[in-house]
Amino acid sequence: MQAAEAMGAEALLVTHLPDVRYLSGFTGSSGAVALRRGRAALVTDGRYRTQAQEECKGLRVVVQKGSPAVLAAEWLVAGGARRCAFDASQTSVAALDTWRKALPGKLRRSFFLSTELLVARLREMKDTDEVAKMRRAAALGCRLFAGVLEHIVAGATEMQVAAQLEFAARLAGAEAMSFETIVASGSRSALPHGRATSAKLPKRGFVTLDFGVLLDGYCSDMTRTVHLGKASQRERDVYHSVLEAQQAAVAAIAPGVSCGDVDEAARSVLRRAKLGSSFTHSTGHGVGLEIHEGPRIAAGQKQLLEPGMVVTVEPGVYLPGEFGVRIEDMVLVTAKGREVLTAASPKSWIEL
Amino acid sequence: MQAAEAMGAEALLVTHLPDVRYLSGFTGSSGAVALRRGRAALVTDGRYRTQAQEECKGLRVVVQKGSPAVLAAEWLVAGGARRCAFDASQTSVAALDTWRKALPGKLRRSFFLSTELLVARLREMKDTDEVAKMRRAAALGCRLFAGVLEHIVAGATEMQVAAQLEFAARLAGAEAMSFETIVASGSRSALPHGRATSAKLPKRGFVTLDFGVLLDGYCSDMTRTVHLGKASQRERDVYHSVLEAQQAAVAAIAPGVSCGDVDEAARSVLRRAKLGSSFTHSTGHGVGLEIHEGPRIAAGQKQLLEPGMVVTVEPGVYLPGEFGVRIEDMVLVTAKGREVLTAASPKSWIEL
Repeated sequence: MQAAEAMGAEALLVTHLPDVRYLSGFTGSSGAVALRRGRAALVTDGRYRTQAQEECKGLRVVVQKGSPAVLAAEWLVAGGARRCAFDASQTSVAALDTWRKALPGKLRRSFFLSTELLVARLREMKDTDEVAKMRRAAALGCRLFAGVLEHIVAGATEMQVAAQLEFAARLAGAEAMSFETIVASGSRSALPHGRATSAKLPKRGFVTLDFGVLLDGYCSDMTRTVHLGKASQRERDVYHSVLEAQQAAVAAIAPGVSCGDVDEAARSVLRRAKLGSSFTHSTGHGVGLEIHEGPRIAAGQKQLLEPGMVVTVEPGVYLPGEFGVRIEDMVLVTAKGREVLTAASPKSWIEL
Repeated sequence: MQAAEAMGAEALLVTHLPDVRYLSGFTGSSGAVALRRGRAALVTDGRYRTQAQEECKGLRVVVQKGSPAVLAAEWLVAGGARRCAFDASQTSVAALDTWRKALPGKLRRSFFLSTELLVARLREMKDTDEVAKMRRAAALGCRLFAGVLEHIVAGATEMQVAAQLEFAARLAGAEAMSFETIVASGSRSALPHGRATSAKLPKRGFVTLDFGVLLDGYCSDMTRTVHLGKASQRERDVYHSVLEAQQAAVAAIAPGVSCGDVDEAARSVLRRAKLGSSFTHSTGHGVGLEIHEGPRIAAGQKQLLEPGMVVTVEPGVYLPGEFGVRIEDMVLVTAKGREVLTAASPKSWIEL
C-alpha cells in the first residue's frame, strides 16, 4: 500500500491470482483483493464462500455475483477512493476497459493508475513461513530425484522416466508439477527446453532432468544431469566446467550482491573454458508461488540480492547435435550469505 | 484476416500462444504471428530456430533477438501496414504500451486497433485434422477411466487415485493433464471444483472424477461419478436426474441450435426434479487447444452451434454437506447432429 501511495494512489486493486493468494491466503480460481490503508477486502463468488471465509482471516470477505475485479473497484469507490493503482503487466487491455466502464462517469478516466509488479516485488522476499514451505518443496524434489535414478535405464523412454517421477511426486502429496517435466537424453540434452518425449534413453549419453513440484502452493525447481554408460573425456570435461560455473555462482550469492554479478560468476568460468557461447540463457530466476518470479539472475541485472529471496542457479552448456549439461539448485539468500535448499541431491558426476 | 479487414485493419498481430499455434503450427513458448493479406510471418528467437522451421511450413520464419511481438509489429510496419488489429483480451496493458513505444512516433497512437477473440472464434470450429486429434484425446480419457476404476477403493486417498490416473496418462503418451485432476469423494463430491486431496475414499459414498489429458496439443475433458458401497434411494434418484439432464442436453445438440437452448435442456430436467437450484454452474464450454474455449453453453447464450464445434456437456447437482453428482461428455457438433466423443465410457450407474 505504501508503494501505491507513493505513486499517488489511495487504493490498490489486485487481480493476479498468485498476488491475491499472497496478500489474502485465498487459493480459489476467481477472486480480487481491494486494499486501502487499514482496510482490505477479498471479493469472490458464491462457489468460494466457505473456502474464502476459512482462508482469509483478518480480511473482509465480500461474496457477490459478477466480476470480482469490478466488485472490488466498486467497493473501493463506495469507501471514498478516487485513485487506484493496478498492475498493468497482469491486466489485459480488455479487462481494464471493462473495469472502467463499470465506474461512475466522472471517475472513468482518472480512477485507475498504471503500475507494474508492486506485489510481485514484495513476493520476492519470502517470510519464515514461506521459506519453510519452499524448504519442504525442495526437499521433496531431492527425494524424487533419488528415487527416479533406478528408472533411468537405456531403452526406457523419456516419458516413462517423467511418468515415474510425477507418479512419485503425486503419491508424496504434490498438488502438481510446477512446470512440464524436462527429460532430455542423448543429443536431445543439447535442447535447453527438451520436454520428455517418446525418445528412448541411449546406452551411452547424458540425461538431463529438470523438474519441480508444487507443494502447499510453492514451487520447487532443480536440474541434474547424469550419464548412462561410459563417458568420453570431453563429456566429463564439459560436465565439470558446468559444475564449476554453477558452484561459483552459488558461492557469489549474498545480500547486497547484484544479480548481474551472480550471472557473471557462472559465465566467466564457462568463458575461460571456451564454452561461453554455448551457455545460451540466463543463470537463474526467483521462484515461489510461481515458477518464474523476480529477481532475474541475468547479465547486467543491477538488482541487489536481499535476505529471503529464493533463486535458481542453473548454468548450462549446449552443444547442438552432440550433448548438453545443466545443473540447477534452489538457493535461499540469508542474512550472512546463502543456503542451498536442494543440497540433499549430489551434484558430483553420476554414471549409471 | 477478413475479420480484421472488416474492422479497418490491414494487418493482424497474434501473440496468444494457442492462437499462434493454431495459425502457424509453432509449439514453442516464445513467438508471434504477423498477418497481412497474402503474407504471414512467425517471429521467434534463436532457441527455436530449427523447431520453427520444421513446424511452420508455408510461413516466413523470422528468427531474431528481442520481443517477438515487437519484431512482428516492426515487420508489418516495414511491409507498409499502417493499422493493425490485436486481441485486447490477450494483451496486457503493459505489453501494449511496450509495443507502442517501439513504433515510429507518428504511428504510436494510430497503429494498434483493439479487437477481441478474432482467432478464438476461428478456433471454435475444428477441422478434420483437429477432430481426429480430439477423438484420440477423448478415447485416451475413456481408457484411463476404465483403468482407474480398480484404484477406487475405500481407504485410498483422492490423491492416490489421481496419481494412478495421471501415471497411466503419461505412460500412454499424454504431454500433461489438461487441468488439475478432480477427485472429490464423499461429502467433498458436493464441491464443483474438488481437487484431489489427502482425504480417504469412504466405504459408502460418491466419488466424482473430472479429468482430461493433453495429447498432441489437444485437450480432453470428461467427468464420471461412481458410487462406493450401497447407495441410498436418494443418491440413486439424484444420479438419475443428473444423467437424464445430461442426456437431454446432449440430445439437444445440433447445428443451428443456440447454446442457451442446450443449457436449458439440462436445466429444465433438473428443475422438474426440484434440483434446479443445486445446479450452480453452466452446462458446458468449448474445448480444443485450450481446456476452456468458446462457445459457452450457458443460460441465455444466443450463439448458435456450428458443425466442427466440440463442447462439453456437464450438468451437476451439489448438495452441500451431503453429496454431489456430475456427468460430462465431450460432444462434436456434426452436419446432421452430434457425436459423443467420450461414448466409450458408460454413464450408467456404477457401484464399486
